[in-house]
Amino acid sequence: METYEICKDLAIIIVFAKVFGLIARKLKAPQVVGEIVAGLILGPCVLGWIEATPFIQQMAEIGVILLMFCAGLETNLKDLIKTGPKALAIACSGVFVPLAGGTLLYMAFYGFAKVGSPDFFKALFMGTIMTATSVSITVEALREMGHLKGEIGTTILNAAIIDDILGMIVLTVVIGFNDPTARPLIVLRNTGIFFALAIIVGYCAYKVFKKIDQRYPHTRRITIAGLALCLALAFIAEHYFGIADITGAYVAGLILCNIHDSNYIARRIDINSYIMFGPIFFASIGLKTDIKDMNWSILWFSLAFVAVALLTKIIGCSLMALLLRYPPKHAIKIGVGMMTRGEVALIVSQKGLAVGLLSPVYFTSVILLIIFSSILTPIALKALYAFSPDESIKAAEEEASNEAAEAKEETPVAEETPVIEETPQEQ
Amino acid sequence: METYEICKDLAIIIVFAKVFGLIARKLKAPQVVGEIVAGLILGPCVLGWIEATPFIQQMAEIGVILLMFCAGLETNLKDLIKTGPKALAIACSGVFVPLAGGTLLYMAFYGFAKVGSPDFFKALFMGTIMTATSVSITVEALREMGHLKGEIGTTILNAAIIDDILGMIVLTVVIGFNDPTARPLIVLRNTGIFFALAIIVGYCAYKVFKKIDQRYPHTRRITIAGLALCLALAFIAEHYFGIADITGAYVAGLILCNIHDSNYIARRIDINSYIMFGPIFFASIGLKTDIKDMNWSILWFSLAFVAVALLTKIIGCSLMALLLRYPPKHAIKIGVGMMTRGEVALIVSQKGLAVGLLSPVYFTSVILLIIFSSILTPIALKALYAFSPDESIKAAEEEASNEAAEAKEETPVAEETPVIEETPQEQ
Repeated sequence: METYEICKDLAIIIVFAKVFGLIARKLKAPQVVGEIVAGLILGPCVLGWIEATPFIQQMAEIGVILLMFCAGLETNLKDLIKTGPKALAIACSGVFVPLAGGTLLYMAFYGFAKVGSPDFFKALFMGTIMTATSVSITVEALREMGHLKGEIGTTILNAAIIDDILGMIVLTVVIGFNDPTARPLIVLRNTGIFFALAIIVGYCAYKVFKKIDQRYPHTRRITIAGLALCLALAFIAEHYFGIADITGAYVAGLILCNIHDSNYIARRIDINSYIMFGPIFFASIGLKTDIKDMNWSILWFSLAFVAVALLTKIIGCSLMALLLRYPPKHAIKIGVGMMTRGEVALIVSQKGLAVGLLSPVYFTSVILLIIFSSILTPIALKALYAFSPDESIKAAEEEASNEAAEAKEETPVAEETPVIEETPQEQ
Repeated sequence: METYEICKDLAIIIVFAKVFGLIARKLKAPQVVGEIVAGLILGPCVLGWIEATPFIQQMAEIGVILLMFCAGLETNLKDLIKTGPKALAIACSGVFVPLAGGTLLYMAFYGFAKVGSPDFFKALFMGTIMTATSVSITVEALREMGHLKGEIGTTILNAAIIDDILGMIVLTVVIGFNDPTARPLIVLRNTGIFFALAIIVGYCAYKVFKKIDQRYPHTRRITIAGLALCLALAFIAEHYFGIADITGAYVAGLILCNIHDSNYIARRIDINSYIMFGPIFFASIGLKTDIKDMNWSILWFSLAFVAVALLTKIIGCSLMALLLRYPPKHAIKIGVGMMTRGEVALIVSQKGLAVGLLSPVYFTSVILLIIFSSILTPIALKALYAFSPDESIKAAEEEASNEAAEAKEETPVAEETPVIEETPQEQ
């Protein structure tokens, strides 16, 4: 392929992704859903215009790394630690129940497999896909209703953030165990060493970046150094520890999330992401979905998959919330608020495809899950808040007092210096 | 290659490119020079750490397309047309003399070739590389001395912009003629049709974008639509008309340079560019430079190449300036101010390599030319202005009155709305 021909593919992908993203938005669904649909339409399922060439796949890989880096950068580590214990318990339960549910579902459809057999890992992987709540879709749903800053909202948000991390750890462990040459203890040891090193190296990197940031705030170099850290950790994680590269990127984001310019970096990475890499990543999911092998069995499986994924999340989170003495009417809200799935489910699926734990035909199940959950969650939450409005009043009051802070959060650029973004002489 | 392994290459490239870019800056040379040197060091010439894989080359191709799109976007079409006639004449002469000089130089070294023979086109291509002045390096040199807004400064700047366009046209024609299956008349016809279509389609696209821009100012969609136009024109130019894709990208930039959000788009594309694509492009030049085949003959050729490129530009521009009744002391300034070479020379060389008109060994000559010219020009200009300071006083006065406007120009972000950059609901 001539190098200039990639221009055609890229132009078609970004236009389709944007148009379908906007249509999704009009239909009150997240834009991500539209971008995936664009990929489905452009790919072998419908038009067959675009092939998932190695170049597109590598761009998509960078895209997902940038997304995870951004997610890490935008994490509020202090809030996370402060409201941590309750959210952690809810997240753990909300990870474990779907993990078990997904595994059992796959086994129920395709036969029970012995622990440690290849089929067992395929089943376990089905559960792994179900683990992570979509932070972005959850935030959007809560914000649109004005419940983001309430106690329930904060709990949901933090639990969703924590379960992204748990999801990554589960993914790492499952992929590690699946490697036939790897021994379980070595996988656990490597995972342990990686996170231990991440904390030590991360602390040093944090100190260094803080220094650079104080000396050269709002410069290109801070963005580039951050991106380099992200790419380096992504490579090191996968190459030396057998841990998913996206985990490395997420950890890089967490390391830098407390430096003063974290928003500045996130904003720039986000621009890179939404202009090109993001749409390519989400569309590539659609491009890789192939319904050639679709049959009734897989269709039924997909419907069961969606039902199990939604119910296990509600059960897992609500039960733990009840145990933590939340009143039932709030516990159910937490469960429902946690049931959205999005980018991380896709990222996990993508990884599964790459290592051979997932067949492309199951992308359809994951995509159905994302579409269903992102449409159902706002509707269900609205109904629940209408049914027990007390929390909503309290939230509304807090909302008013937090309005300024929230406005700031919604437009990250407002935190940047308004006039000179980069000192031209000091790039 | 596993997809995650690209992370290592990218991380190394962007870190090296940034570090050497900063070193170049400290040495008062343009950053671009440092980025090329980074590529030279990482590539087969020195360390051999990074290979110019297809992925790196395709990223570089996108990088140069984004650079040319930005250059087009930042053009001030009205100023260009207003101060056009004189600048056009100087640019034409400044393109023709180096074109002839470069061709004759190659022939002097490697034998005179019949017009239309393969060797003739190789010779002509040597001249083509010499045609385009570097707008960015010129602007920087003039700005650092405070002469950007004087009459001479404006003339130099506009001539430099026009000769980029002329350089692109020469490149297009030379590449077109070189294709053995293409007949000269068809090449000229295709070039004519492309530019005629570009004006018609461009005018329509401009009207459409103006409408979109008025309705949805400062949104992601305007940036994405602009980028899609750029990629589409790049593809169409090369695929249907045999015109370099970068010409298409530049034309896309020119089409959009007068919409209200052109700075907004340019800023976003620029962020994409400097974070990843730009360093990869410039470093890839170094990566592709191979001195394995270097010998004394080529070394002498390189030195002669630099001398001829600098002298022919000074002669071509100064003579035309004299003909246009500029006093000699100013005519020489114009010639010297035009002698910088930069990105476009690299872009042209890259294209020549792709179509087989240039051997990688001559990259060394081009790189030497860029380094020499970008170091010599500021020194020579400073000396000339010291020798005849009248113009400098006049310029300084204009400078003061234009200070506000210039400050605005230097920090394009200042033109953006400071608080809300993108309406979150209307992406």
